[in-house]
Amino acid sequence: MTPAGSGCRLRIVAIGDELLEGRTADTNSNRIQRALGQHLTRAHDVQVVPDERESIAAALERTVPGDLVFVCGGLGSTPDDLTREAVAAWAGVELRERAPLRERLQRRLRERGLPVPAGVMKQAQLPAGMEPLENPVGSAPGLVGSLRERTVALLPGVPGELQGLLPLVVAWLEERTLLPMVRPARLWRTAQVPESAVVEMCRPVRESWPGLRWSYWLTRWGVDVRIAGEPGSDAELDAAADAIDVALSHRTYAREMLPLPLVVQNELLKRGRTLSVAESCTAGLLGGALTDAAGSSGCFRGGLIVYANEAKQSLAGVSESLLVEHGAVSEPVVRSMAEGCRTRLATDYALAVSGISGPGGGTEDKPVGTTWLAVATPTATFAARYRFLADRTRNRALTVAVAIDSLRRVLDAADDVDPFRDDDFWARRR
Amino acid sequence: MTPAGSGCRLRIVAIGDELLEGRTADTNSNRIQRALGQHLTRAHDVQVVPDERESIAAALERTVPGDLVFVCGGLGSTPDDLTREAVAAWAGVELRERAPLRERLQRRLRERGLPVPAGVMKQAQLPAGMEPLENPVGSAPGLVGSLRERTVALLPGVPGELQGLLPLVVAWLEERTLLPMVRPARLWRTAQVPESAVVEMCRPVRESWPGLRWSYWLTRWGVDVRIAGEPGSDAELDAAADAIDVALSHRTYAREMLPLPLVVQNELLKRGRTLSVAESCTAGLLGGALTDAAGSSGCFRGGLIVYANEAKQSLAGVSESLLVEHGAVSEPVVRSMAEGCRTRLATDYALAVSGISGPGGGTEDKPVGTTWLAVATPTATFAARYRFLADRTRNRALTVAVAIDSLRRVLDAADDVDPFRDDDFWARRR
Repeated sequence: MTPAGSGCRLRIVAIGDELLEGRTADTNSNRIQRALGQHLTRAHDVQVVPDERESIAAALERTVPGDLVFVCGGLGSTPDDLTREAVAAWAGVELRERAPLRERLQRRLRERGLPVPAGVMKQAQLPAGMEPLENPVGSAPGLVGSLRERTVALLPGVPGELQGLLPLVVAWLEERTLLPMVRPARLWRTAQVPESAVVEMCRPVRESWPGLRWSYWLTRWGVDVRIAGEPGSDAELDAAADAIDVALSHRTYAREMLPLPLVVQNELLKRGRTLSVAESCTAGLLGGALTDAAGSSGCFRGGLIVYANEAKQSLAGVSESLLVEHGAVSEPVVRSMAEGCRTRLATDYALAVSGISGPGGGTEDKPVGTTWLAVATPTATFAARYRFLADRTRNRALTVAVAIDSLRRVLDAADDVDPFRDDDFWARRR
Repeated sequence: MTPAGSGCRLRIVAIGDELLEGRTADTNSNRIQRALGQHLTRAHDVQVVPDERESIAAALERTVPGDLVFVCGGLGSTPDDLTREAVAAWAGVELRERAPLRERLQRRLRERGLPVPAGVMKQAQLPAGMEPLENPVGSAPGLVGSLRERTVALLPGVPGELQGLLPLVVAWLEERTLLPMVRPARLWRTAQVPESAVVEMCRPVRESWPGLRWSYWLTRWGVDVRIAGEPGSDAELDAAADAIDVALSHRTYAREMLPLPLVVQNELLKRGRTLSVAESCTAGLLGGALTDAAGSSGCFRGGLIVYANEAKQSLAGVSESLLVEHGAVSEPVVRSMAEGCRTRLATDYALAVSGISGPGGGTEDKPVGTTWLAVATPTATFAARYRFLADRTRNRALTVAVAIDSLRRVLDAADDVDPFRDDDFWARRR
């Protein structure tokens, strides 16, 4: 086994009929990528193949000497589980039963009072040249070793078992210096700006540091930006990061992998402030998102789902005349919802949303996607009109993200500074 | 383009650095597989490759004449988006700008008041031999056509956009008889029972009809069962379906691809009945799910997010003594929440949930996952204790699914029949 240089390629082969029949998404590849993320920017590729010897062999045939090959799935005890046989045949080595493995399997079954199912003992067989890593979760061990000049790891496809074995595989690889050096990277998480605008804001910086690796991706809350460099490029990354900080400015809600609601939650908890919500079109999704993370009960008190106009009146105290004069999707109504909610729930802040998510309900003045947001603070209430242009589901998700980010902007500035003052909101129409 | 026989192979190429960096799981391949599920049992393989011309070309090079090739991702407007160029180069055809596409893109941007970003106009370029399918959700059109004797479909990688385009692609393929004949199938959607129990309930039927193809999969609401046969096997399918109807009985909420909340919504609308919710641990997710579908305002009125105990008192009218004596996660409190909500929102039905989603907050008596549900009807209130054994996110999702299904069971029986009377709830402990 030769130590892997920075050119070491991670190849993933995910095995299983269920991954090709629309039943199960391959999430294991992502787990493997994340476990190796500090060493390798990304996997070279992922091949998803069925439980068939020829398909598995063909996928392995596409790897080349020097590759780091992770194979997941097909290590169980049913007749479908063919990975061991297929790997041994591809490598031209024998399958050998290991007595300690067989004893461990028998002990496991005895302890659980289970009969020994036909075929389970094939889990004690290993391709020659591989060694077992004990599975902390299930019965199938992980297998690691060198075959045909590739470093190969075989892992079970059950996500919990794979997840349990991954740290052991990474440690095994690190001990043998089979992984490239850790690569430095920097991250920005932004909200309220579309991907194309984020790319545009970063363009001058990107042109000044063409040697860095740039990535952009959409999240539930907005757009993330990451730059990565070669080992030892920290000074270069820091210089570029200063320029990106300026370019993205107040649109950045986190510099690490924190979800937006948790950023707001942490800020509220730090200040001992409380929050409530009044929701029309989102009907609870905003409250749901604000309680995604454990610990949310320290700041989130509750809210009012005021889907029908009668509920806006009876729960949030919106006056009938406002509803009649301006309609449910209007600035006066959303302001009244936020202030009524803040009072009724006795919280420091309240968020209110009222919009037309679609597909029906639009008018010429208020087309589908028209959404009013309001933030009530201890000293002021701010409101803004947005227009989302996606389908019902996505319009509601965008409403949730933008509402939470609006409170984040209040907390970043001050209770009496309008969080809607900037003009970079991607879907806003005043 | 030659009509595809039953030997037609579906090859999927998923493109995107984010799929290889541990950030995003490839869920699109599953969507494609499901969209074609009536015609094809499974995909031949999935290749996940980065946003690089050579990698995309190499993946396409592995397909063969006669294949049906779905390529997803890399159709956006950033410099990373190389799919059009890579496909054109692989096919040896030119990229040509289409004037109607350019005009549509410009109109879209104008409507949104956005500047025209550099590069966006490349979305108006198509490899010669392909035609555009208008994207109902986003800006990038889907592209379909015949290249190098393969039928090729290019779809955007944003899941909502891909999902919106898939029916159009399938219709396009069906019109041209480019898919194998539809395989007749029957579907059952069940709630409240774990997958292993559903498999066990169906086992005798499966043994009586060994020639059918059986599939089981988890959904957001429960477990789906599908049986499929060869073209012409409808009589056999109907006979097996009768037996499965009996085996699954009241656990089936739909025999077609309807989401559970829509089943309940349709039933409420048909009867002119109304619904409200009182949510503690789910903090709005239940209301959010019940308004997923357009038309929900005809029956869903609103609700109370009573996350903090003070909110349970002030909003739902739960007495302080009940909370002190029994705790927030208890039968008396969840009953009081449901009844208080039904009264305050003036609805026919009310659902209430209160649980310990975790990871903290568990005790010996009420471990993490303990959840009380209540259904208040015009004539009675029913409650039951569940215990969910997953993580916080999944425990909350299970609570939502089980709560909605409990109302579905009331609507299927009668307002005064306990929906919790059966003993097959997968996570329940009395």
